Amino acid sequence: MKYPAIDYTSYLELDNILGSQKPKSEEYKQPAHDEMLFIITHQTYELWFKQILHELSSTLQLFSQKEVKDTNMGIIVSRLDRIMEIFKLIKMQIPVLETMTPLDFLDFRDMLYPASGFQSFQFRLIENKLGLLSTERLTYNNAPYSKVFSEKEQKELKASEDQPSLFECVNKWLQRTPFLNDEQFDFWKNYKVAVDKMLSTEIELTNRNSLIDNDIKEKQLAQIEKTRELFSALFDKTKYQELKAQGQWRLSYESVHAALLIQMYRFEPAFQLPFRLITRLLDLDATLTEWRYKHALMAKRMLGTKVGTGGSSGSDYLKKSTEKHKIFNDFFQLTTFFIPRSQLPDLPDTLTKKMNFNYSQ
Amino acid sequence: MKYPAIDYTSYLELDNILGSQKPKSEEYKQPAHDEMLFIITHQTYELWFKQILHELSSTLQLFSQKEVKDTNMGIIVSRLDRIMEIFKLIKMQIPVLETMTPLDFLDFRDMLYPASGFQSFQFRLIENKLGLLSTERLTYNNAPYSKVFSEKEQKELKASEDQPSLFECVNKWLQRTPFLNDEQFDFWKNYKVAVDKMLSTEIELTNRNSLIDNDIKEKQLAQIEKTRELFSALFDKTKYQELKAQGQWRLSYESVHAALLIQMYRFEPAFQLPFRLITRLLDLDATLTEWRYKHALMAKRMLGTKVGTGGSSGSDYLKKSTEKHKIFNDFFQLTTFFIPRSQLPDLPDTLTKKMNFNYSQ
Amino acid sequence: MKYPAIDYTSYLELDNILGSQKPKSEEYKQPAHDEMLFIITHQTYELWFKQILHELSSTLQLFSQKEVKDTNMGIIVSRLDRIMEIFKLIKMQIPVLETMTPLDFLDFRDMLYPASGFQSFQFRLIENKLGLLSTERLTYNNAPYSKVFSEKEQKELKASEDQPSLFECVNKWLQRTPFLNDEQFDFWKNYKVAVDKMLSTEIELTNRNSLIDNDIKEKQLAQIEKTRELFSALFDKTKYQELKAQGQWRLSYESVHAALLIQMYRFEPAFQLPFRLITRLLDLDATLTEWRYKHALMAKRMLGTKVGTGGSSGSDYLKKSTEKHKIFNDFFQLTTFFIPRSQLPDLPDTLTKKMNFNYSQ
Amino acid sequence: MKYPAIDYTSYLELDNILGSQKPKSEEYKQPAHDEMLFIITHQTYELWFKQILHELSSTLQLFSQKEVKDTNMGIIVSRLDRIMEIFKLIKMQIPVLETMTPLDFLDFRDMLYPASGFQSFQFRLIENKLGLLSTERLTYNNAPYSKVFSEKEQKELKASEDQPSLFECVNKWLQRTPFLNDEQFDFWKNYKVAVDKMLSTEIELTNRNSLIDNDIKEKQLAQIEKTRELFSALFDKTKYQELKAQGQWRLSYESVHAALLIQMYRFEPAFQLPFRLITRLLDLDATLTEWRYKHALMAKRMLGTKVGTGGSSGSDYLKKSTEKHKIFNDFFQLTTFFIPRSQLPDLPDTLTKKMNFNYSQ
Repeated sequence: MKYPAIDYTSYLELDNILGSQKPKSEEYKQPAHDEMLFIITHQTYELWFKQILHELSSTLQLFSQKEVKDTNMGIIVSRLDRIMEIFKLIKMQIPVLETMTPLDFLDFRDMLYPASGFQSFQFRLIENKLGLLSTERLTYNNAPYSKVFSEKEQKELKASEDQPSLFECVNKWLQRTPFLNDEQFDFWKNYKVAVDKMLSTEIELTNRNSLIDNDIKEKQLAQIEKTRELFSALFDKTKYQELKAQGQWRLSYESVHAALLIQMYRFEPAFQLPFRLITRLLDLDATLTEWRYKHALMAKRMLGTKVGTGGSSGSDYLKKSTEKHKIFNDFFQLTTFFIPRSQLPDLPDTLTKKMNFNYSQ
Repeated sequence: MKYPAIDYTSYLELDNILGSQKPKSEEYKQPAHDEMLFIITHQTYELWFKQILHELSSTLQLFSQKEVKDTNMGIIVSRLDRIMEIFKLIKMQIPVLETMTPLDFLDFRDMLYPASGFQSFQFRLIENKLGLLSTERLTYNNAPYSKVFSEKEQKELKASEDQPSLFECVNKWLQRTPFLNDEQFDFWKNYKVAVDKMLSTEIELTNRNSLIDNDIKEKQLAQIEKTRELFSALFDKTKYQELKAQGQWRLSYESVHAALLIQMYRFEPAFQLPFRLITRLLDLDATLTEWRYKHALMAKRMLGTKVGTGGSSGSDYLKKSTEKHKIFNDFFQLTTFFIPRSQLPDLPDTLTKKMNFNYSQ
Repeated sequence: MKYPAIDYTSYLELDNILGSQKPKSEEYKQPAHDEMLFIITHQTYELWFKQILHELSSTLQLFSQKEVKDTNMGIIVSRLDRIMEIFKLIKMQIPVLETMTPLDFLDFRDMLYPASGFQSFQFRLIENKLGLLSTERLTYNNAPYSKVFSEKEQKELKASEDQPSLFECVNKWLQRTPFLNDEQFDFWKNYKVAVDKMLSTEIELTNRNSLIDNDIKEKQLAQIEKTRELFSALFDKTKYQELKAQGQWRLSYESVHAALLIQMYRFEPAFQLPFRLITRLLDLDATLTEWRYKHALMAKRMLGTKVGTGGSSGSDYLKKSTEKHKIFNDFFQLTTFFIPRSQLPDLPDTLTKKMNFNYSQ
Repeated sequence: MKYPAIDYTSYLELDNILGSQKPKSEEYKQPAHDEMLFIITHQTYELWFKQILHELSSTLQLFSQKEVKDTNMGIIVSRLDRIMEIFKLIKMQIPVLETMTPLDFLDFRDMLYPASGFQSFQFRLIENKLGLLSTERLTYNNAPYSKVFSEKEQKELKASEDQPSLFECVNKWLQRTPFLNDEQFDFWKNYKVAVDKMLSTEIELTNRNSLIDNDIKEKQLAQIEKTRELFSALFDKTKYQELKAQGQWRLSYESVHAALLIQMYRFEPAFQLPFRLITRLLDLDATLTEWRYKHALMAKRMLGTKVGTGGSSGSDYLKKSTEKHKIFNDFFQLTTFFIPRSQLPDLPDTLTKKMNFNYSQ
């Protein structure tokens, strides 16, 4: 009531929005009904990418403060929740686009050459801000991914590579978790003890088990041995750093501890939000991967083994990117090192008290 | 290869598309993070509405020819399939918008007054082109729905009301179904005979049934009687016209026959597409209604019992529109008059032959 | 490795599960292909209902303790999250069932008389455990809903009505919120002050506004007056109790305060989970309502205006239940009383400190 | 009314269905809340698998007749439509199962050893009936996939391998398409002419194009050359048979022609259903692949790099199966050989007449 009156059409700048569909097939006087769908599908993608960037930028900004306040952590998680919902939505745009058959696409496909989804500047920015390493990127027609962009855009992409990504922010935030080295409780030491005990018991029980045949027994023992080796590599800091140097891990050693601690004791009040944050990162990575995969399937269906409009390897490229472009893979790997709750070391009361709210004492 | 090279950004006019978000909260120096989501959600809605209109216009144009060719019927159904997929998609935009909490909305809600979704010109056009009767529309602040639009828009809306809608096209097309009055088979007469026989048998079996108590028996007989009355009203053309005049039916009498015939014998080759067409109309109506309903629930959640930004009855309006704004209701009602396949009159060979492809003889 | 080996088929009792489909149409030698779909759809519904009851019972048990521990609150929310996912899933079963056309259904519908979804004991149990009041229930063929069940089932339903429901548990838990009457901050008093100030300012600004016509000005002032009345009824405890007695509210007066407090200051660490809990209740109610609505639409499509197999009013019943069977309606209504963040009273530091974790001081 | 009264609970055998959940964790007195979800998720999977088999068996039976009647083709497509909807639904079960965290799973995981989803007999049957070649299957712990089943089940699996699969039925049905060698129109010959003309024109236009640099021109010419080679391999029957022998194609040479013909002229009345059939096969393959992929992602998330309960390679196995277990891949490949509608040879009137309904002349 205190603001000037506005109307729907001008607020949403609908003249601009709805006046920006210029089918090439009409320009060339060979109207192809389905080109409109092609244009609008990609325009809505880009609008949603803009929204994702809006959320990501706010998230990175909240993370950039010297200390991430607990009130802000709630905001961060709600930003990621929204990004997830948007990715779920745009996955649903694929069935809409698939109402265009390959033959319908052929009606105007040649007119678009060499435009291509690889030229989506915003999508590259999203990848960078999430934390995709440029070394992990596939090249595109044997050139770096940024080659297709204008100089100004290339600069902005470079800047986004250099600024802290979501991955890096989370890594930094994790390693500062205040409960890792409590005076009265060294989580990592206790976790190692619990793992050792768990494995010894398993060996003993397997050996004593008179109900199973020897060959199965040996198979099981071999399996336990394999698990022990995996844990050894984790508990040995030098070994971990080696694996990290080889690219098998990306989190710092302390962050790994923190991530395990949070997930093992997720119902402690102080870990509720951190646990949701980690879960959201896993969700995000899974959805992004799934979206790439669905996209690759659609491309294959639309083009067969033909080259994409960008002259690229088309559906093959997309498929490879499904394999490679993972960002939060470490968190998937970490699951390997979960141990059953019944085997977990108990947290001392002094510690759980700190993980609780002030009022509850 | 024969066309000038284009690039992704300019083809999609991304400078326009991505430069059309102007949050009022920024203009007024009280930045509200979530206003961007509000803008982009509505812009994508409008883009999809444009696509729906693109499909609807093409459909109406295909229907407008003197005789609807069978090859075109396939195109029409594929247009409707696409519209359905789009409605399914935009239903999924609601959970995205719901990541904005009511409190987040309050941060900028007052700044939008009196802009409102009721001012979506394209949506009104869609309703008209589908066949929503202006007499069926709810008024809006005691004024006709079109009052909020510019003179030019009002003219276009009026024109869309006057042109044949999808409902009317389908009605006209149905009543021309060439199999209704075959020389050797009068469907309607035969259908009446089958219904009478079915009901008589049911009465007899119920009366003879010694396994059920008398009060249940009476209840069942009353039910059969009620069914008989419903059918009577259908078989009596004068009665049907009366009901039609009262607004209880909207299809012509012949179209009702055709719609029943098609649905009863849907696997006959000549009825495959007509059956899919009718099914799509039912789907469309259901999805549109469901979308309105979800929308009303969201509005209630966002605003409680407050008035909407447009000064309207807000969530109540939306709820009422769920009840009222049905277009293809006749096809839902028709189900009442389906009879079991085992009771259906057999079609004579001469007729099924006509319903088949030439080559199959 | 410590447990006897088991195999998939016997663990899941698949012989039982997959041997429990006995189509009546086969028994009566008139095989109807689609009856299998009808049976399996309903069996999977019932399996999911069992899972929902499993989650609900655990939730109620966690709530039943003298004091709900903060660690348990996380578990409770994760139970409700799961229930939500299940409701989302079973909503998706409707399109599967809709692949059966009305005509296909007629092939075996008469054989099922008078079996009906109204006889789903588990679903009634879910409604009771959520907190549906028996006074809010529609009658069924003029008899109480429980009439169709066995004596043993009726007893169990009665018991579930008498035990504390989720609604009652939440109500009780809300009114114990420890921050409502802090020594140094009386939320309710401060909220009233803020509301009064907000409304006065709005009136003043509207009166002073020289940009709008007098008739619009009056309309706006009338609207503000209406809002003031709504708030008056909320701030007046006696009035609230009257409305509650009339069934317009169900929460206790203190719970209303707590629910507002939590939603207004949701990012305070101590309110993160309570906020998610309230959100989940709104989600649950919306999804349940939506599911009933979709179900009603499907029934209408399948049966037209015919009576359901249970002899009931069929799709009409389902539609009415959509209107009536709301459980957490109070939380939807509460939104009416949210005020913009910029107008919210600041919480004193002593209070926010209590809402924070121990370690953060 | 003519049948004995039945009730919901006994019709659905709910005592059996709801009495078949026997958590191991309860048996071993270490109750794990989430085991119920694990059991019920898998039981509903198996119920839906039963439904899929019901549809598949009916489909194969309809295909097995000497001549597939056009009325039956509609039924076949509606069966596949339903299978698709079921696959879409069970994909949605994954988010439900994912509400169980890896740690929750560890509470009872050891108790299930060595039970595993690899032991789903029904799923193997589905794969066989769709047409998965046993030579295409991954081995499981170095043994054939059927090794884990009982002798009786192995026999049934073997039988399903030997009977005509959906792939084989479709292949056989395609090669009988009556329009391939019309007296007045040889599709294959005409298609080759059109392709040659299209490629020549493209070369000419590229050469003449003065707007592009020489290196781009060469790149484009190389691309056209590559396309020409792909087509050559298709038009040369001997070459095709070689590729088929190498496993690069599976359809017969005639079926490839028919599949192209149908997809190029899909709006001809006689091709409407065949086109939908082919589309459904592509959809089915894509959805199945997508489901496997999502499943693999979930397994990775749940288990990390640990071995699955079946002692298998777990998530790796599932991932590999995503790559390998394609059934209708030929139809994806075929898209490569689509040419733009504007280049398609016109069908002679005598032919289109045969593709039309009798009545339309």
